Amino acid sequence: MGIIEGVPAGVEITSGHIADSLARRRLGYGRGARMKFEQDVVTILGGVRHGLTQGGPVAIQVGNTEWPKWEQIMSADPVDPEVLADQARNAPLTRPRPGHADFTGMQKYGFDEARPVLERASARETATRVAMGTVAAQFLKHLGIELVSHTVSIASVTVPEGRPLPVPSDVIALDADPLRCFDRETSDAMVAEVDAAHKEGETLGGVVEVLAYGLPPGLGSYVHWDRRLDSRLAAALMGIQAIKGVEVGDGFLTASRRGSAAHDEIVRDGDGRIVRTSNRAGGIEGGMSIGDVLRVRAAMKPIATVPRALKTIDVSTGEPAKAHHQRSDVCAVPAAGVVAEAMVALVLAEAVTEKFGGDSVAETARNIKGYLDNIPASLDSIGQ
Amino acid sequence: MGIIEGVPAGVEITSGHIADSLARRRLGYGRGARMKFEQDVVTILGGVRHGLTQGGPVAIQVGNTEWPKWEQIMSADPVDPEVLADQARNAPLTRPRPGHADFTGMQKYGFDEARPVLERASARETATRVAMGTVAAQFLKHLGIELVSHTVSIASVTVPEGRPLPVPSDVIALDADPLRCFDRETSDAMVAEVDAAHKEGETLGGVVEVLAYGLPPGLGSYVHWDRRLDSRLAAALMGIQAIKGVEVGDGFLTASRRGSAAHDEIVRDGDGRIVRTSNRAGGIEGGMSIGDVLRVRAAMKPIATVPRALKTIDVSTGEPAKAHHQRSDVCAVPAAGVVAEAMVALVLAEAVTEKFGGDSVAETARNIKGYLDNIPASLDSIGQ
Amino acid sequence: MGIIEGVPAGVEITSGHIADSLARRRLGYGRGARMKFEQDVVTILGGVRHGLTQGGPVAIQVGNTEWPKWEQIMSADPVDPEVLADQARNAPLTRPRPGHADFTGMQKYGFDEARPVLERASARETATRVAMGTVAAQFLKHLGIELVSHTVSIASVTVPEGRPLPVPSDVIALDADPLRCFDRETSDAMVAEVDAAHKEGETLGGVVEVLAYGLPPGLGSYVHWDRRLDSRLAAALMGIQAIKGVEVGDGFLTASRRGSAAHDEIVRDGDGRIVRTSNRAGGIEGGMSIGDVLRVRAAMKPIATVPRALKTIDVSTGEPAKAHHQRSDVCAVPAAGVVAEAMVALVLAEAVTEKFGGDSVAETARNIKGYLDNIPASLDSIGQ
Amino acid sequence: MGIIEGVPAGVEITSGHIADSLARRRLGYGRGARMKFEQDVVTILGGVRHGLTQGGPVAIQVGNTEWPKWEQIMSADPVDPEVLADQARNAPLTRPRPGHADFTGMQKYGFDEARPVLERASARETATRVAMGTVAAQFLKHLGIELVSHTVSIASVTVPEGRPLPVPSDVIALDADPLRCFDRETSDAMVAEVDAAHKEGETLGGVVEVLAYGLPPGLGSYVHWDRRLDSRLAAALMGIQAIKGVEVGDGFLTASRRGSAAHDEIVRDGDGRIVRTSNRAGGIEGGMSIGDVLRVRAAMKPIATVPRALKTIDVSTGEPAKAHHQRSDVCAVPAAGVVAEAMVALVLAEAVTEKFGGDSVAETARNIKGYLDNIPASLDSIGQ
Repeated sequence: MGIIEGVPAGVEITSGHIADSLARRRLGYGRGARMKFEQDVVTILGGVRHGLTQGGPVAIQVGNTEWPKWEQIMSADPVDPEVLADQARNAPLTRPRPGHADFTGMQKYGFDEARPVLERASARETATRVAMGTVAAQFLKHLGIELVSHTVSIASVTVPEGRPLPVPSDVIALDADPLRCFDRETSDAMVAEVDAAHKEGETLGGVVEVLAYGLPPGLGSYVHWDRRLDSRLAAALMGIQAIKGVEVGDGFLTASRRGSAAHDEIVRDGDGRIVRTSNRAGGIEGGMSIGDVLRVRAAMKPIATVPRALKTIDVSTGEPAKAHHQRSDVCAVPAAGVVAEAMVALVLAEAVTEKFGGDSVAETARNIKGYLDNIPASLDSIGQ
Repeated sequence: MGIIEGVPAGVEITSGHIADSLARRRLGYGRGARMKFEQDVVTILGGVRHGLTQGGPVAIQVGNTEWPKWEQIMSADPVDPEVLADQARNAPLTRPRPGHADFTGMQKYGFDEARPVLERASARETATRVAMGTVAAQFLKHLGIELVSHTVSIASVTVPEGRPLPVPSDVIALDADPLRCFDRETSDAMVAEVDAAHKEGETLGGVVEVLAYGLPPGLGSYVHWDRRLDSRLAAALMGIQAIKGVEVGDGFLTASRRGSAAHDEIVRDGDGRIVRTSNRAGGIEGGMSIGDVLRVRAAMKPIATVPRALKTIDVSTGEPAKAHHQRSDVCAVPAAGVVAEAMVALVLAEAVTEKFGGDSVAETARNIKGYLDNIPASLDSIGQ
Repeated sequence: MGIIEGVPAGVEITSGHIADSLARRRLGYGRGARMKFEQDVVTILGGVRHGLTQGGPVAIQVGNTEWPKWEQIMSADPVDPEVLADQARNAPLTRPRPGHADFTGMQKYGFDEARPVLERASARETATRVAMGTVAAQFLKHLGIELVSHTVSIASVTVPEGRPLPVPSDVIALDADPLRCFDRETSDAMVAEVDAAHKEGETLGGVVEVLAYGLPPGLGSYVHWDRRLDSRLAAALMGIQAIKGVEVGDGFLTASRRGSAAHDEIVRDGDGRIVRTSNRAGGIEGGMSIGDVLRVRAAMKPIATVPRALKTIDVSTGEPAKAHHQRSDVCAVPAAGVVAEAMVALVLAEAVTEKFGGDSVAETARNIKGYLDNIPASLDSIGQ
Repeated sequence: MGIIEGVPAGVEITSGHIADSLARRRLGYGRGARMKFEQDVVTILGGVRHGLTQGGPVAIQVGNTEWPKWEQIMSADPVDPEVLADQARNAPLTRPRPGHADFTGMQKYGFDEARPVLERASARETATRVAMGTVAAQFLKHLGIELVSHTVSIASVTVPEGRPLPVPSDVIALDADPLRCFDRETSDAMVAEVDAAHKEGETLGGVVEVLAYGLPPGLGSYVHWDRRLDSRLAAALMGIQAIKGVEVGDGFLTASRRGSAAHDEIVRDGDGRIVRTSNRAGGIEGGMSIGDVLRVRAAMKPIATVPRALKTIDVSTGEPAKAHHQRSDVCAVPAAGVVAEAMVALVLAEAVTEKFGGDSVAETARNIKGYLDNIPASLDSIGQ
């Protein structure tokens, strides 16, 4: 469960909206059986009344239909040791999994087995982030800001350069694609890649991209490094389990280009509005949104619980062992896109309230409009 | 100037240490003439007495020998308009440069020219970060933690995979290399690349890597996304001017691998200590340092002030124009490595004080030792 | 419901501990009928397993047995308007109560009635604070730090100067006193005062004091105003609903004394330990705990929902009216003491983790011991 | 020196404004000779150009004409020990002063003498707060918000109840009063009290009050305890050196009143505007400004460096001793009023930017106006 603070009053949100988002987090070819039988149970515990936020923190609980099987093992209150002794699920996890928090988590907290680490470090926690992100996204939607996420690579299968970017109206189609990929042919190749990996007992990673449409110019800051929009987005994306790389716009590719081909020139379009000739910067210059489409990417490592189990040490015996192997997903990249979208929504919502203030959606919207209306004609540009 | 808070008492720091770091920020083949005639003037304004921190905030001013030329133009107090009218340097900057904060900065703050944006958004500000980072690095050094930064790519010229990583004793050699590159041959190719770009009126970007040696396991968190070490490092690196991508360990490359070849298996070494068979994760699992070498990378875009000037609009006339072009550096990647090292030092120092507390270096060091000594033998590993 | 972050692993906590604390919040002569029929229902939603914290955030829900009556009126999801129309409880609150957030809350958020304000601003929210404070107090107890709260005044009935302070072993007796007052005679007078007020349709305020025993010296800071222990305690106490004044030690009385009689002189006691001749400062000097008993006070205004109803305006008609009057407590000061104790526990727990770090209680305790053991003999004092 | 972040662009500020504020901090009957010969030297190091803030952090250095005498003793860089040995000012401070941070500061940081504690804990640091507060006050002034501070008590000499409150136009007269007291007769009695204390080798404390005029309703929050305006003001005031108590409105007096006489009833004035019949709450209800005059008080203890020196222990010998006694002020209460005014300005400026956002004063002002204009007529009240 989670709490999101600072949401203005008047944002439309229901448990249905959140359930829909959570269902999107379960999407994707290559997920194991668990995604099918586990169900999310959404309860809004506070902050919303009759479908509208009230200005206070919004608290949301995301339950899991599998919980009854774990109720005693993970019980907050003490449980009779004899009852626990009978339960196979309660066996200590003493073979820490490489690529997970297991080993270091035991060192850090002084645990003698990895159960408490695994439970908290689990990507199951991203369900809460998606729930929180849904609230942020609803707030942004009231302000004309919409997000889209899609899969750019699965392992080495990548959408070719130059393909069109999906727009908000493409989301339904994207969600229907097995890998949430916007390029039909690439998607087919991705499916084949997942099938091959599955056969070989392998897991796969990939790259997702999040786009934001409708941003006003000037969110973030060139003044403080920790308020820069790119800095905050990087933190939010890198803070997702299994993410090992983050790019804004063309990212690493930009670093290999020459200066004359690396930036977005400023020109006037047919209507006389000031626009850019490209969007290599991903809609961010000087740590601020420039009003163009925001574009950020995150690289996800392959799932660390590999069927072809990895080497580890059983810490109860000190002997070499194979790592615990508890799930059978091949690839969780499409889900990572949905989680990344949620994290971007949270960052943007915060940046909006920071610049524009507002205790109600109406107040925030009014302040944005006042800002855009007061940009002098000589600076009229995209994003207005 | 800047202030760093939360530094324990007893850290050895002098203005000499800071001046040495600032000199490293000026290094690198491809810098323009400005780096030569500008000098940094360091004044420690508070927090240090007789070469030791005192437990309060450390305030450092980094002056610039060029300041007298700008004293009236950038004066805090009002200046007689007639005096200003005479100064060419005071001419309004009305041709915003693509790739900089200029245009959006004017929209955001309501400025009618870009001078105030340019001055604050300038990478000159990184001098302060390097000064602050020096204090953090001195603190870490007392605790046995040392940092190294080096250049991995200039444009498309890249150190080949599998080359050895520099260690702390290599820093002098690195600083002597024209591009702070640890691979002799690659460095030569980089010099040639810079020369070629210079001839063509181009600028170049590249990739830098920061390494940290001697970290205890368990810095950061798998519990909160915003306390994860990878998340904080990503924010700190992406928050540097001109950085567009960040990787932890093998980063984007990891996303293209299969699961069995993407993680760092856990085994026992010849001495019976628990170690890893590789360091693909960059020394971070589950958002925590694992005790192995920390390894993070940042991708820098080419300098946006391109001699072959970029298209823009003169906002005073509304006419198409060429962007202001005020400096002649081809490439600032080696300097970015030094800045990145400073940012990593700041993040690590914060993560250390968060986990270990301490109002004096002696107290922090004692707490770290107590922690490592109390990790049970069954979990003894690298990093202890 | 609430979440407390940063709690080390290994703190003993059960829903029983929390229920006990919540029961103390209901204590006190002068509470209305509501305190009797409403029951708190505690659910620990996360962060605790088998009675021990696990290092992650601890989430606790405090339900209310009256909730079913409000389920539709306060439903998060939309409810059929016809169903709502039938419910008297859903009638708009248009007569804002002086002394409450009602009127300004409507202005701030753009609400046309005060229901959403009243529900969130209600002191019912302090149940969550008490739950969170219980976790903090359990953590502190592991470290030898114990808290006591007691009532010092009800209206103008005040414990005379110079009476002994209650110690931790007095808590049971205090909780059994009708007003949680440690002075028998004063308590009787307070009961009489409450009775008199009740007869006259009045409400009463008063003053509570919180004491902390067993603090090490050096919590807080003389370096930063916002890390001073007194500053943080003042914020925490003033942040409780209905609190209008805060004192540390003798507070306002100290301001009226002369310098030679206002401080706590430093002397050596019979055992040669450095001690103070008095505790006027309330155990805080220079923004830090000095190791002596911490002593802070909070002044609570009379309950704003006065039976003898106050003047207001009905905002639906614009006509003068009497304020909504929904409960019949005369005095909530004893409960405020319990809430204040919880807030002090939260501040102290944070100050402890800030200075001593620690991911587990064992680590924090070890760091405290190391600190105290390393204070040189020449500075050995109270608090060690 | 200090840095204030988050100041919008366009605030008028010069070093003259700051020097004027600092001069007010030196006011007051009862200050020692030091206040006369020390002079503040103001340098704005960044964030302001030609008298206007530029949107970045504002850095201000407040130097001291006495600095040359201390340059070697407090030098940041190491100094030849022989040079130091000759200087009497460098003698170790081994007799910690009761009522100061000296003793606990040595324990906390592991210092063997109190010099580093004394220098940092000194109320000299409030010069920086006043400088920062001046920037905040200038920002607020642009928005029609003005502050006044005055002395309410010196020791037991107190302004009688019911006297009129000073308004912004009274500030010049207040500053001219020997004790910054708004009541002529009380001021005379205060002067006599200071004279008497001076003769007896005593020091005095007192109570100051800060008023804010022109606040919009709705600053702060009833939603989060740590964003309540009263909570933040309490922290800011209690965080000033020597403050031991804080009140909002009638504070402790309110706790002794009955409910029907403790609140501010809501009525309509002759012009039909909704107003209050009193201002007992100090302009804050439910943690928010209500639009009425804000009124907060702080109680200052007598100066701890008492001429009639207090008992202590010489920690170098372990023997009883008299505390160091380095200055001769009798009373610093008038100065505390100026410092309190600065702290209130900082809190209010932060609360304004939080609710209204804005990167420039024009934007913030526009957002406030939009908010006030959109409060429905049925809720029109004071503060609009």
